Amino acid sequence: MIISEAKRKRLHEIIFEADTPRGKQFDLLLMVAIILSVIVVFMESIYEIRMRFVFELHVIEWIFTILFTAEYISRIIASKVPRNYIFSFYGVVDLLAILPTYISLILAGGQYLVVIRSLRLLRIFRVLKLTRYIRELAIVMLAIKASARKISVFLFIILTLTTILGTIMYLIEGGQSGFTSIPRSIYWAIVTLTTVGYGDIAPATAFGQIIASLVMILGYGIIAVPTGLVTMELTRKNIPTNTQVCEHCHEDHHQDRSKYCHRCGHVL
Amino acid sequence: MIISEAKRKRLHEIIFEADTPRGKQFDLLLMVAIILSVIVVFMESIYEIRMRFVFELHVIEWIFTILFTAEYISRIIASKVPRNYIFSFYGVVDLLAILPTYISLILAGGQYLVVIRSLRLLRIFRVLKLTRYIRELAIVMLAIKASARKISVFLFIILTLTTILGTIMYLIEGGQSGFTSIPRSIYWAIVTLTTVGYGDIAPATAFGQIIASLVMILGYGIIAVPTGLVTMELTRKNIPTNTQVCEHCHEDHHQDRSKYCHRCGHVL
Amino acid sequence: MIISEAKRKRLHEIIFEADTPRGKQFDLLLMVAIILSVIVVFMESIYEIRMRFVFELHVIEWIFTILFTAEYISRIIASKVPRNYIFSFYGVVDLLAILPTYISLILAGGQYLVVIRSLRLLRIFRVLKLTRYIRELAIVMLAIKASARKISVFLFIILTLTTILGTIMYLIEGGQSGFTSIPRSIYWAIVTLTTVGYGDIAPATAFGQIIASLVMILGYGIIAVPTGLVTMELTRKNIPTNTQVCEHCHEDHHQDRSKYCHRCGHVL
Amino acid sequence: MIISEAKRKRLHEIIFEADTPRGKQFDLLLMVAIILSVIVVFMESIYEIRMRFVFELHVIEWIFTILFTAEYISRIIASKVPRNYIFSFYGVVDLLAILPTYISLILAGGQYLVVIRSLRLLRIFRVLKLTRYIRELAIVMLAIKASARKISVFLFIILTLTTILGTIMYLIEGGQSGFTSIPRSIYWAIVTLTTVGYGDIAPATAFGQIIASLVMILGYGIIAVPTGLVTMELTRKNIPTNTQVCEHCHEDHHQDRSKYCHRCGHVL
Repeated sequence: MIISEAKRKRLHEIIFEADTPRGKQFDLLLMVAIILSVIVVFMESIYEIRMRFVFELHVIEWIFTILFTAEYISRIIASKVPRNYIFSFYGVVDLLAILPTYISLILAGGQYLVVIRSLRLLRIFRVLKLTRYIRELAIVMLAIKASARKISVFLFIILTLTTILGTIMYLIEGGQSGFTSIPRSIYWAIVTLTTVGYGDIAPATAFGQIIASLVMILGYGIIAVPTGLVTMELTRKNIPTNTQVCEHCHEDHHQDRSKYCHRCGHVL
Repeated sequence: MIISEAKRKRLHEIIFEADTPRGKQFDLLLMVAIILSVIVVFMESIYEIRMRFVFELHVIEWIFTILFTAEYISRIIASKVPRNYIFSFYGVVDLLAILPTYISLILAGGQYLVVIRSLRLLRIFRVLKLTRYIRELAIVMLAIKASARKISVFLFIILTLTTILGTIMYLIEGGQSGFTSIPRSIYWAIVTLTTVGYGDIAPATAFGQIIASLVMILGYGIIAVPTGLVTMELTRKNIPTNTQVCEHCHEDHHQDRSKYCHRCGHVL
Repeated sequence: MIISEAKRKRLHEIIFEADTPRGKQFDLLLMVAIILSVIVVFMESIYEIRMRFVFELHVIEWIFTILFTAEYISRIIASKVPRNYIFSFYGVVDLLAILPTYISLILAGGQYLVVIRSLRLLRIFRVLKLTRYIRELAIVMLAIKASARKISVFLFIILTLTTILGTIMYLIEGGQSGFTSIPRSIYWAIVTLTTVGYGDIAPATAFGQIIASLVMILGYGIIAVPTGLVTMELTRKNIPTNTQVCEHCHEDHHQDRSKYCHRCGHVL
Repeated sequence: MIISEAKRKRLHEIIFEADTPRGKQFDLLLMVAIILSVIVVFMESIYEIRMRFVFELHVIEWIFTILFTAEYISRIIASKVPRNYIFSFYGVVDLLAILPTYISLILAGGQYLVVIRSLRLLRIFRVLKLTRYIRELAIVMLAIKASARKISVFLFIILTLTTILGTIMYLIEGGQSGFTSIPRSIYWAIVTLTTVGYGDIAPATAFGQIIASLVMILGYGIIAVPTGLVTMELTRKNIPTNTQVCEHCHEDHHQDRSKYCHRCGHVL
């Protein structure tokens, strides 16, 4: 540890927490910096802007990189067990936010680094975590996690369906109007079943349009299935709605009509 | 107060309420006037109509403005505490309905006023409020409010996802077929994930189409999440449908046709 | 009454019911005739077919019309109170199924009659009503009815929103890329918010695309609201899930934990 | 039976089960083989690849066919009652996976066999069945089955609606902008109501766009109906999550972490 324990604790409170006014100020500043730095990444990708402001964008990028590097080092210093921070999810994201600029010094034409640079956006969630939205975030995350498996099985069935439907369409449309190969026809089936409907590939024959109609109606009808599953999962999980707390064991997840604590058997 | 209290009360009943036949007539007339005045705003925006009927449209607009001004003044007079009305939501909307025409007298080329003029449509909700749809409106509003926060967190996650997916697509499609910059690619990712699918930007490479398929399937699958959240919220809130309470055991969850309490068997 | 009561009853059983083998045969034949006659209507609309088979289509149409006329008269005869049948929903639909062909004798170029002829399809629901799908139909209808009001209020809010968003887009895109008037821009807003996304009108400016993204995300997020409302309504209505029947009053709509009949107070 | 009972049992365990390490290895290999063979089918459909690698694709196809044939024979041998396997769903699918290649020897130009070949993908579900996803698959399948009837009735109503709306649009647009016949207009109505929106057929007249807007809003609004139905069905079915039953009062709806019965307070 480079700094005293008291100083570290104070630093920790400012950087990692949001209870103190200073901590809130820091979080706000950080959020602004993250958003600005991501906007710079986007600006760079626009040909006209890249051509005209090549130098300015370079300078701004370095300013943000140095700022984020300072922040990253501060976070390591402020952590009780730096290793835990470094290998945590946000620790890795923080490192990824500064690495690309340094790598671009060594490697030329590192255009693929742009994806890593855009990952900076993930850092926003850290700030979000400290706000009043945390409970909402937790519930949404819970909803996603609770249903991830069922939804993936559902999507797997959908994928099999689109594969078979795509193959059938390839035969019907026979290379016409964009259905030049089975993969392309499967791509069309996905575009149609998910109700996206670009229109870059669309059936031209009457029979093809009948099959397409079936795919659409299927896609429109079965969207209800994952929705039903998520809702069932969420209502079943019974996210704390009952505020009763058992006097005896302090368990607070009770069903609405419970008369006895389900953990210790005490009368509620 | 310009008029006597009795007259003010009678005026209030006609303008603000819908219990009396006169009040209902007033509301109906107002609704027709609002819809017509909004249609005039729309008509003006059509080039051919604007060219041919420039004078007529001008006259009609002024007639509506004078009518609405008279109505606005009447509302102020009819209010017990005019200030409360003026600074209420509908008070401001009422003012905005007449202001643009007066401003256009002073300022030339105030084309941006068209948006403010279209806000007149919001006045419809005041009339709606007085009808039998009020309970439905309240429930829909409650549903929106109850889920607004969870849905915004969900949409924030979606936005982060589309940003990263957009950046990846920008790299894959490499400036081809519309993916000319990261912001445009993010725009495409939003168009695709939300299953809108204009088709103005569509992937041309095989790898791009694979990623696009993933985005679509993702969009199709996770729509279930906000739906599940809203449903959970609504079922939890348990919006009172039956207000009967058993005198004997005070159970208050009765079915609509119940004559006896389902818990203690007492007559309701 | 033209025929004896006994004969009328037998006719009624064949035409209106589906319990007897003859009744089932009649229903099946009718369904086939309806579908075929509707297909003929569709065929006529295809230019190539109309040109080549003008006479054949005419003959087939008259055969169906005579058949349906015979059926219509039989139904009148078979009814106990013919007036009740004639002015019932299906009575009117049955009449509309035969009228257009007769009218075309008198009036030339009655192309608008094609819509009335396509209404024949509604007669299918009569046959459906007599099958095992009746319970499913009832539940779906109940779901639609129960939520019709809430969904219409929701859609009204959506319409107001699209109007204001359309006006804003008209200003931003300034007549470019299809946004030539406010009504067209509102049309675009509806196309986008409902996630249909034709792509015939799509924003070209960067700012327009940002607004469009907002509209899409909004449309994607708030679809959850009507869904939640319908689900709430359906779960609340409590469509017979509990099979308990009160011994005393034979009421069969009980809540799951009820110990006493909610209608007569008898112990279940 | 060709082999001894003990050997058959061991073979059965490897081929049909996934409990033993060998069985898991076999399943993994099979899954890889299935996916690769399906990819080969897809590759063949791409013109450039078919032209260049005609011989290689042919060889690979035969390798997979021989492998799958060997597997098919092994499965027959390993089955206690081969007939039961052969006529089971997966038995037929397994046969269909190898038949097309053999048929192509006899019949020339059997391009329609490509659909049968793509059915190989269904074999994946057998492997899936043996994994930890089986419960998820069962629930998703249950959800689909439970709602299949209601959703089909709903879709039937939708189809009737699109037919009538399509006919109306055919009259309004009068052969213009793609609405050349009633079937095509119905196709458009389905594309629009399901919110797919290709844009290959889009209304050009103002009145047509108003009707189109109605169709879109209808499609956006009533998607909620099947969703509500599925959710109701799923919540009603009350798929067992916790199998614990109280010894004392036989209550069986316990929360996952319950240690005491919430109804009588008895230890679970």
